Parts: sequence; structure tokens; C-alpha cells
Amino acid sequence: MRRIAVLAEGYFNWQDAKTAVGILRYRSDTVVAVIDSTNVGRDAAQVLGDPDGPGKGVPVVANVSAALAYAPDTLVIGIAPIGGQLPAVWKAEILQAIAAGLDIVSGLHHFLSDDTELAAAAKRHRVTIWDVRRPPDELAMRIGEGRAHRPGSHVAYFCGTDCNVGKMTVALECAREAKQRGLSAAFAATGQTGIMIEGSGIPADRFISDFLAGGVEGMVLDLAERFDWVFVEGQGSLLHPAYSAVTLGLLHGAAPDLLVLCHEAGRSHIRRYQVPIPPIPRVRAIYEEAAGWLKPASTVALALNTFGMSDAAAREAIAQAQRETQLPTTDPVRFGAGPILDALLAAV
Amino acid sequence: MRRIAVLAEGYFNWQDAKTAVGILRYRSDTVVAVIDSTNVGRDAAQVLGDPDGPGKGVPVVANVSAALAYAPDTLVIGIAPIGGQLPAVWKAEILQAIAAGLDIVSGLHHFLSDDTELAAAAKRHRVTIWDVRRPPDELAMRIGEGRAHRPGSHVAYFCGTDCNVGKMTVALECAREAKQRGLSAAFAATGQTGIMIEGSGIPADRFISDFLAGGVEGMVLDLAERFDWVFVEGQGSLLHPAYSAVTLGLLHGAAPDLLVLCHEAGRSHIRRYQVPIPPIPRVRAIYEEAAGWLKPASTVALALNTFGMSDAAAREAIAQAQRETQLPTTDPVRFGAGPILDALLAAV
Repeated sequence: MRRIAVLAEGYFNWQDAKTAVGILRYRSDTVVAVIDSTNVGRDAAQVLGDPDGPGKGVPVVANVSAALAYAPDTLVIGIAPIGGQLPAVWKAEILQAIAAGLDIVSGLHHFLSDDTELAAAAKRHRVTIWDVRRPPDELAMRIGEGRAHRPGSHVAYFCGTDCNVGKMTVALECAREAKQRGLSAAFAATGQTGIMIEGSGIPADRFISDFLAGGVEGMVLDLAERFDWVFVEGQGSLLHPAYSAVTLGLLHGAAPDLLVLCHEAGRSHIRRYQVPIPPIPRVRAIYEEAAGWLKPASTVALALNTFGMSDAAAREAIAQAQRETQLPTTDPVRFGAGPILDALLAAV
Repeated sequence: MRRIAVLAEGYFNWQDAKTAVGILRYRSDTVVAVIDSTNVGRDAAQVLGDPDGPGKGVPVVANVSAALAYAPDTLVIGIAPIGGQLPAVWKAEILQAIAAGLDIVSGLHHFLSDDTELAAAAKRHRVTIWDVRRPPDELAMRIGEGRAHRPGSHVAYFCGTDCNVGKMTVALECAREAKQRGLSAAFAATGQTGIMIEGSGIPADRFISDFLAGGVEGMVLDLAERFDWVFVEGQGSLLHPAYSAVTLGLLHGAAPDLLVLCHEAGRSHIRRYQVPIPPIPRVRAIYEEAAGWLKPASTVALALNTFGMSDAAAREAIAQAQRETQLPTTDPVRFGAGPILDALLAAV
């Protein structure tokens, strides 16, 4: 069991700190402090806007020095900034953590272990730097083969209208629900936060384009040999001006039988872009169309992210989306993943 | 002007030696020899099956030693094998070329300049190693912005039913035809051979997935500032089990106004895969659908690769495809790119 300090300086909010929030939600027992000097004095749950939610009781502190009071053994770089660059001011903080004997876990595009100064410091202080976005050697240059999964296995892909709508969370909740029901199920991580939570996976957006589908296919083929259900974390959106390639590579590489569509209630445009999100039934048709170029997949449920709404408003938004899409719809974080898992089980 | 020896050992045929064939066709005045010990004694054009075609008069020799008789100053790695690995037996040949003072140009995924032995040899003999598949620094980590091109510019994307059907060639022929007509036109290279021919470009399949659309967008925005017509070389196919992500990243990053669809007459399946190629009108609809998720683009012409057919059979295949698709159709290598350029000009 790790004792994790999460570095999220200046970014620790629900929208920007995907990694920090994900780790607080699924590895919360291991987080001893969050570092963000702009939010000192409250606990992490309060900062995230849900006092009883992830991060309850986890102190927010000003810097690595202050975090050391809570005896961490690991520093996680807890944001995934656009472009994946390491904010320059953080390097001194990371060096300080290394000097204090902490292992470093990073999901940035720029590999910390390739930084000669950080690498030398890690060697000197005998700590490890794990760049979770570095593709695993055995899959980094695998060519997609279009191979069929083990008969009897079922692969579900969790696709989204946009980035940051909750695809990873929905896949994790479904995997948890399936395991609680005694099913043989695996969560297939495809992003830095999912990989940190799961301990393994495919950093899809960091793969060389030529090998993306092949890498994902390799991971899914392996999981489908060992589990009856494979829940593949989706990335990006087919509608995203920057990341649609990542999405299609995952979709074709994972070759799912079933799709779960994820959306945030009220989001009308691709975040940070001018691109409008079409009506949900149209987005569903787009994913089924693109999957179907190689292998048919049908959408069985809609996961609606209702973060920040009242329970009553959330229920109304879910009911409305269900009417619009004719799909079983829920917010699995708020109301549990049962209806989504039921829909998956009913489809096979 | 370079004096190029092309290393294509064991792979020098029309299907496997894309890079060699492309260089022979568009930089033929600079090629002094092709290396392939399995085809010694004929000239390159004879080996490729068209005695009056690209490579006429270019000797095929057994190894680097034999090529040195023709006084090359550059060795081009003239194949793009699946996976991009350097065949092990070639390394000694490359070291010999370096020792003889030749610059090295490679389109392999494995960067030769990262090989310590090759890099040390290059330094010792004061030659350069150009890995054309290494993304250019200024575009390697650019995030797609979804920015509009300069008003008045026109961007055409050359898409294909499969890999290796002639997308690069068609785009190059259209660019050449446009320049001959006095138009302001640029060829935007997106693959290793196109980059070698053009001297610059985006190695799309080597980009990190997250930055593919952004890198292509950056190149196209720049070219559209300086030229009225930008002809973007397509890669892969939206139907390809391994490479569809590369294709969608290019399509969304280039954000074309117009599409030219490329197909090889008689090809029924994705090469090396079990995936059937749907009827051409369906492939056209797939590309227009995918482009339209972000920006509408219409298909204006079909380029049909009729390599290996008689002129009469080629004319019949073209006529049949034109009837089936209702698109202006020709083989621009055999009959000239005029009708395709006419269709592009008529569409704006």
C-alpha cells in the first residue's frame, strides 16, 4: 500500500485535475495529501465541491515541504495538462520530493525519467520514476492484426461525446459492479489515470499512431483470454478536432461487441473548441457507424454525468436523456452502475 | 542534386518497395543504382514490370560495394516494411556506406540516428543520417486547434480504399499538373516517401497519437497561407484494422474542402487482412461521413490505379468505375491528372 502525495498545484479542481480526482476516488485510502497552494486550508473533497465525496479528510497543502509532514512515499503528478508538458515551476518541487526519498509517478507526455537532472537525482536517492504514459515495450510497436477475441468473452467500449465526461469512471464503476456480482471482469486502462489506478494499461494517446490499434488489440486479446468481460476505457471523442484519431484507433483496436455511451448533462460543445455536440442519438449513430466499418457493435446504455446537479435535477436529466435515446440511462457515480451492467448482460 | 543509391534488398518489387518506386518516379534523375541482390542484371524499370517506366537505365546491383562503382553520395533505405523495423542484415551494408562517405536517408520507424553504432560511424565519417520519420520539432507536440484555413485557399485530401493504392502518386501528379497550368499549388507530404521526394512534411504514422491532427493542421495552415491549392497526401484507410487512426487524424487535421478517392482496380480486400473493401460509393460515403463530423468535404473525383493492365483493360475499368460512382475517373499515372484537376477546379 502506497502513501501518495498528489501534486496538483494551481489545477486542483474537478475539471482540470482528472488524475488527482480519479486517484482520490479509486485509491483514496492511499492518498495522504494534495498539493495546491491556491486551496490550502480545506480538505480535498471540499475543494472538489462535494464535501462527502472523494478526498474527504485528505488535507490540501501548499508544497512538497508541507506534504512531507504526512509521510508520503510517492509523489503523483496529479494533472494531465493539455499537451502534457511539465509546468516549469514544478521541477524544483519534484527534485525536493526525490531528495526526500519519494518515488515519482507521472502521466505527462514529457517523460520525467528522460530528464537528465531528474533521472540523476532519482538514481542518487534510489527512488523510481514511473512514466505511466511510456508505452509498454511488448505492445509499443505491435501492428494491428484484426484478430477475433476468445469466443465467449465480451468486450465493451466506453465511448464519449467529448473528453472529460467520465468514460474512465463509468468503466471502472461497471467493472466494480461486475466483480461484486461475481462475474469475471477486467478494466482495460487506456489513459494515464486509469493506468495509475489499475497498475497497467495502454497509454493510448502516447502511442505512435501506426501502432495504436495494434497495442490496444494486444491488451484486449490478452484480457479476453483471461476474463469473460473486458471493459475498455475510451478516450477522446470521434468529434474531437485534436483527438479523434486516438478514439478511432482505440475503437478499431479494441473491436468491441458492445458500446456504452458517456455524456455530461448540459455540455453542448466540445470543451475548449467551437464544435457543437450533436444530439445523443446522432453521436450514438456515429460510433456505431465507425465501429461497423470493421465489426458491428451496438450501444446498450447511456451514462450521464450529472456532477454538480441536485438529485432531483439529475433524475430529471436522466429521464429526459432516456426518452431521447431510448437507452437505459443512469449516472453510475450517483446512482450505481447496476442498470448499465444489466444492459450489458442482457445484450449477450 | 544528389546521387542516390537505393537499398531495397530482397524487396524491390512494385508492391513492397513503395519508397524505392516513388523516388525512381519523382527523383529518377538522381538515382544512380538500386541495391537488390535478387534482381541483379536487369535495370530497375524492367524489375518493376514496365521497361519504359520509372527506373529505366538505372542499374540493379548486388550490394553497397557494387553500388559504389556508380559514385553515389547518398544511400536511401528504399523500403517501408510493415512495422518499420530495420532488417538486421542491412546494418552491415549501411555501415559500409557510411564508411564510404555516403549520407543516409531512412524512413524506418526505428531511427537509425538513435543507433549508437550507426551514429558513431556517421560522426567519424562526417556524414549525416536523416530519419525522415522523425516528427519535426515545431509540430511534434502541437495540439489540434480546429482553425480555419486562409480564405481563398483550397485543401484537397487524397483518401484511399486501402494502403498502397497510389494516394501519394495521385497527389503528386495533381500538384505537378496544377503547377504546369500556372496555379499556386503545394504537395503536402505525410509519409516517408513523400517527405523524401518533397524534402519536408509530416510523418503522420510516426506521430504520437495525441498530436497527429495538430501536426497535420499546422503544416496545412502554413501551406494554405502560401499557396492557393494544397494537395494533402492521405495515409492508410478508414477501413484498415491497423491504420485507421492515422487516416482519421490526417482527415480531421487537414480539414479538407475536397476529397479525391484513390483505389486500385480489382483490389477486393484490405491487403494482408481479411477485411473486404465495400463498393466504391460506400467508401466515398464513409470518408464524407467522417470528414463531416467536423467539416463537410465532398468527393470530386476517383483515381483508379490500373497498374499492370493493358491500356484497353484500363480504359474499360475506368469507364466501369465512373458509371458505378458517377465521379470523374481516371488513372493519372497512365492518362494524366488533367481530369482530376479539372474536377477540383470545377468544385470551388
